[in-house]
Amino acid sequence: MLNLTLALRQARQMAANDTATLFLNRRHSWSEVYDRVSRFAGALAGNGLKAGDRIAVLALNSDRYLEVYYAAWWAGGVIVPLNTRWNVKENISALNNSEPVVLLVDGHFLEIVPAILKANSSIRLTIYMGEGSCPGRMLDYEELVNSTEPMEDVLRQGNDLAGIFYTGGTTGFPKGVMLSHTNIFISSIGGLVSGFDPREDYVFLHQAPMFHLADAAMVTMCTMIRGTHAVIEQFTPRESLQAIQRYKVRHTLFIPAMLGMFLQHPDFDQFDLSSLELISYGASPMPEALLREVMERLPGIELWQGYGQTELAPIATILRPEEHVPEGPGSELLRSAGRAMPHCEVEVVDEDLQLVPTGTVGQIRVRGANTMLGYWKLPQVTAETLVDGWVLTGDAGYLNEEGYLFLVDRLKDMIISGGENVYSLEVENAIMQHPAIAQCAVVGIAHETWVEAVHAIVVLKAGQEVTEQEIIDLCHEYIAGYKCPRTVEIREEPLPLSGAGKILKRELHKA
Amino acid sequence: MLNLTLALRQARQMAANDTATLFLNRRHSWSEVYDRVSRFAGALAGNGLKAGDRIAVLALNSDRYLEVYYAAWWAGGVIVPLNTRWNVKENISALNNSEPVVLLVDGHFLEIVPAILKANSSIRLTIYMGEGSCPGRMLDYEELVNSTEPMEDVLRQGNDLAGIFYTGGTTGFPKGVMLSHTNIFISSIGGLVSGFDPREDYVFLHQAPMFHLADAAMVTMCTMIRGTHAVIEQFTPRESLQAIQRYKVRHTLFIPAMLGMFLQHPDFDQFDLSSLELISYGASPMPEALLREVMERLPGIELWQGYGQTELAPIATILRPEEHVPEGPGSELLRSAGRAMPHCEVEVVDEDLQLVPTGTVGQIRVRGANTMLGYWKLPQVTAETLVDGWVLTGDAGYLNEEGYLFLVDRLKDMIISGGENVYSLEVENAIMQHPAIAQCAVVGIAHETWVEAVHAIVVLKAGQEVTEQEIIDLCHEYIAGYKCPRTVEIREEPLPLSGAGKILKRELHKA
Repeated sequence: MLNLTLALRQARQMAANDTATLFLNRRHSWSEVYDRVSRFAGALAGNGLKAGDRIAVLALNSDRYLEVYYAAWWAGGVIVPLNTRWNVKENISALNNSEPVVLLVDGHFLEIVPAILKANSSIRLTIYMGEGSCPGRMLDYEELVNSTEPMEDVLRQGNDLAGIFYTGGTTGFPKGVMLSHTNIFISSIGGLVSGFDPREDYVFLHQAPMFHLADAAMVTMCTMIRGTHAVIEQFTPRESLQAIQRYKVRHTLFIPAMLGMFLQHPDFDQFDLSSLELISYGASPMPEALLREVMERLPGIELWQGYGQTELAPIATILRPEEHVPEGPGSELLRSAGRAMPHCEVEVVDEDLQLVPTGTVGQIRVRGANTMLGYWKLPQVTAETLVDGWVLTGDAGYLNEEGYLFLVDRLKDMIISGGENVYSLEVENAIMQHPAIAQCAVVGIAHETWVEAVHAIVVLKAGQEVTEQEIIDLCHEYIAGYKCPRTVEIREEPLPLSGAGKILKRELHKA
Repeated sequence: MLNLTLALRQARQMAANDTATLFLNRRHSWSEVYDRVSRFAGALAGNGLKAGDRIAVLALNSDRYLEVYYAAWWAGGVIVPLNTRWNVKENISALNNSEPVVLLVDGHFLEIVPAILKANSSIRLTIYMGEGSCPGRMLDYEELVNSTEPMEDVLRQGNDLAGIFYTGGTTGFPKGVMLSHTNIFISSIGGLVSGFDPREDYVFLHQAPMFHLADAAMVTMCTMIRGTHAVIEQFTPRESLQAIQRYKVRHTLFIPAMLGMFLQHPDFDQFDLSSLELISYGASPMPEALLREVMERLPGIELWQGYGQTELAPIATILRPEEHVPEGPGSELLRSAGRAMPHCEVEVVDEDLQLVPTGTVGQIRVRGANTMLGYWKLPQVTAETLVDGWVLTGDAGYLNEEGYLFLVDRLKDMIISGGENVYSLEVENAIMQHPAIAQCAVVGIAHETWVEAVHAIVVLKAGQEVTEQEIIDLCHEYIAGYKCPRTVEIREEPLPLSGAGKILKRELHKA
């Protein structure tokens, strides 16, 4: 029986009075979190939630977000954490696809609730999990916690569905990655095998978005070691620096773009970061120069890289702290994504899915107890991605003779901007809504802060005129801000095409 | 997919030329072990082994024993490691119960093969895995490895049966504990979360018997971290000391009785034990005095205690190195068995299986992905032991307010002598075969080396005469040597009986 709420029961058994969560001026002990989770689960069940029902969450980070993960599992539900950076159309797509019976929102998303409820027919209950007073027509999270008796854990486990995590889709429609209790449990315990020391004065800072599996995995891992979860609503360099100082944070997770902003903050040297011992990073390629800067600016801090994707719950390989060697033998590993975790196999294959020799570039595939159950209601895409138990990652890379993985490119036409996946096709689909556009190609270009930025190249129909801003504004109607082009180039000559009529993006990159 | 051969594929990918096994004057690298395992698996399959078929092993420790574990799993088989200390009748019981199609033996057990084959009808193939030349009518392990093409892994996984591990039974008949791939995998990875550092210069010494799950778990754990398996045929204090020096052993496993003999060896100080960093111990209660002696005689060495039983694949709680504090605050934990591992829950319940308050003694029960599938072909005993997913351990103990487990007694009528379980009933059944015995009770008494020794108290029928030695000799006919009484007391007065007519062993203990 692999079950995700086990860690919470253990934390109560072993560390009842230790600090579980810190947020704003609130502190909860493990016995309090246990109590609150079992009560909120009771409230969900009391309102008709049945095992397997979906519970959607649209909120910035908070201590309650952690409780909601555990309460959803406790009650037998399936959590659907929505992307706070998506626009309302995208999240309505995800909601209509996953058909949750409950929607939880905080104060930042109240405005769009009416639009959601108008477009969605599955949501029977809307719960306010934000600060301050609860708006009318919603149930209040705190009130439910206080007025409901605790329930017994439903004990979903193994291959039972634990969550649906949406990622952008090449089809322009979000894909819901189905992860089981086993998937997330094994990925978490595998992560603990390296680099996490179960000391009870462990404080982890949730600053990356908790809806994203990179951080959600820390919800489970840090609970397994009974560490303290310090939480800030969202990342800004200043709030990150303040929180590390205030909460004596020992470990946090950065996506590379966040890390660059963090180091460049003008008051960086004003903060006491002496508690910080470990930085995890991942979710997008780490520029070597930035990695070297971290090692120089934060000497003595351990670095831990994870490579994976939501489909892998989420990590497949790790570059361990001792593998971060700045100079001499071993320093070539700074360009590596590390080696397979103990619970999964990593291979590189050619187009016919045959193994390629060591050192040869091909598609990376991963098989293990962490590989997703599939995409929710997308059997066709599932069959293309999950082949004989292997997840085809769409990433290109090679393995060296010691099993270190080196990423070289992405096979899927995807840009990773600020740690978020942007599928070119989604952006192209938005741009092509404009009647004046004849051709369009979206590519990633190097960007100092976001690592890659979305760039659009368009060709107008004869006699038409459009401004760059007009195209960018149009995109904002259809897709999340971070997916919209930062820059647009309007070309005279037609875009280069392949024999099959596809735009040759590699040629555009060269230009 | 949780699958036990994954670690072997990873070791070949990451550490192909590193030393995998050391035994006698042999050394094999991971790529060699991988090759040999996939070839021997091919030989098993080529000889008709099908997924789920049992493969019994009756042998002392060797490098080949490790290969046989992996080859059995690779070919889709179920390994049945036989207790080398049991007598032929006991092992025939286990063989007739598990019905293996293959039996592997080494040179130490050749003599009893004819008796086994006469009594058993399932074994179709006998393979010699010992040193030197292969006896007639058997296939030779090395020849099979050399003459067979490697096969593809059958990839059994999850709840598929991986092994049947026999333990003594209260019924006098051995019980086969069925463990799945998930059971052993999760227990191994859980063990790695604490105390095992995946450095590649890791050398583990197999000196406890490899048929026993305490050591077999190290076969899987140490492979997961690509450590070197150094192997000695069987434990003697001198060979242990020699091997630690010769192989620069970093970590080994002792049962408490072995540890006492090890420390008391007259030449202890002659050996260079400076490579030794970690000692695991378990499988029977550790006397506090012995533990303190280890800490004094081997200062700076980390100690790691595991408590569990075969039914728990095998560990449920761990006392971590930093929890071994000789003096002052925390030193009371030296009497504890530690806390639950991250993959299982440990509770204490009363006779009605209701939770007792913290600090109250009751029966220890354990639930997790490590709890056995059940006892092979013993649904009744399974139903009594595995209740609502919990294994009732038969051990009594209590939990403190931080979840530390303290063992106080065993509920099952069992003696642990030299780390081996001896069920009193088994011994009593043997003694009662003697026509002169009227009453008999077998209890454990304190013993310097074996922690507990088997002691029999008998009452003769009127007018009969029997010597102590006669009773001991009789037992050797029926049960393994370690189960036979070391001492026998012949009493005149009848044994004290309970109202229900059961012998009151607690009264006997007091006397």
